[in-house]
Amino acid sequence: MNAKISKSVIPNSFTFINLTFGMLSIIFTLNSRFQMSAIMIILAALMDRYDGRIARKFNASSQLGKELDSLCDLISFGVAPAILSWGNFLINLGIIGYIIVILFPIAGAYRLARFNVTQFNNCFIGIPITFAGFLVAIDNIITIANPHYFLSSIFMLFLSYLMVSHFKFKKV
Amino acid sequence: MNAKISKSVIPNSFTFINLTFGMLSIIFTLNSRFQMSAIMIILAALMDRYDGRIARKFNASSQLGKELDSLCDLISFGVAPAILSWGNFLINLGIIGYIIVILFPIAGAYRLARFNVTQFNNCFIGIPITFAGFLVAIDNIITIANPHYFLSSIFMLFLSYLMVSHFKFKKV
Repeated sequence: MNAKISKSVIPNSFTFINLTFGMLSIIFTLNSRFQMSAIMIILAALMDRYDGRIARKFNASSQLGKELDSLCDLISFGVAPAILSWGNFLINLGIIGYIIVILFPIAGAYRLARFNVTQFNNCFIGIPITFAGFLVAIDNIITIANPHYFLSSIFMLFLSYLMVSHFKFKKV
Repeated sequence: MNAKISKSVIPNSFTFINLTFGMLSIIFTLNSRFQMSAIMIILAALMDRYDGRIARKFNASSQLGKELDSLCDLISFGVAPAILSWGNFLINLGIIGYIIVILFPIAGAYRLARFNVTQFNNCFIGIPITFAGFLVAIDNIITIANPHYFLSSIFMLFLSYLMVSHFKFKKV
């Protein structure tokens, strides 16, 4: 049991680094450094690709690790991209901006909760929040100099819908 | 099954309102409106006291609801208070500020994950993140006009420790 706990420290550390990038992203947005904020989300996405793999490689997958992973994913790929988009362009859109900045993490939380209570059979139902958050970060980087209010808003609403949808995606 | 899903909409709505207050708290911090940011966290804490009760009252407790509750709690009582404290005083503390703003939600995430994988027998192990986040909001309200960098930092570190500690607290 103790060996299992100490082994699981390695993948859990990756999960905490993922959360650290998520928090740094929000802090960079607070300082209006939107490009750095987006880069933090992309680094978090890289971390996220490795924690599960490393857990399986070290045979250290644990229920605690899976719960932690979901919790940290919501910060780095739900809250951080929404706050980045808020600082970058949603802030100018009035009530529509408020709806999108709140809807995106709600859709992400629902997607994560549903994933945690259903059996995973190598097929995602709805796009993973990691992918949605990563795409929002990329969109923000592309449009920082020249925000596309309408297109970027529709893009975030569409990603929110895809997260809660029942479309099936094969894991790659 | 469908009746169960439609019944669980009521407590889940409270959970989503909790998350909404958490996101609004972060947005208010972005606009340097620290008092409103703290009030949002306090409102989220009020919501959080009722979603579980309402779920039990309507006999609509669900595994999905519990997962959602944890995810939203991390935003409203882990991320939002940390970001509020960042804007209010941690921003002036250099590397110590970065450590605290990241440690607080990490401790909260660990507390929530541990809670989700252990059997609850009417006794909390470590203080709940809801209570820790609520206390940070109250501390920020009290010290907005006159920040106590040292005391407030020690307070946040102490709460982070209490969340991951194995002290037992009776549920009231």
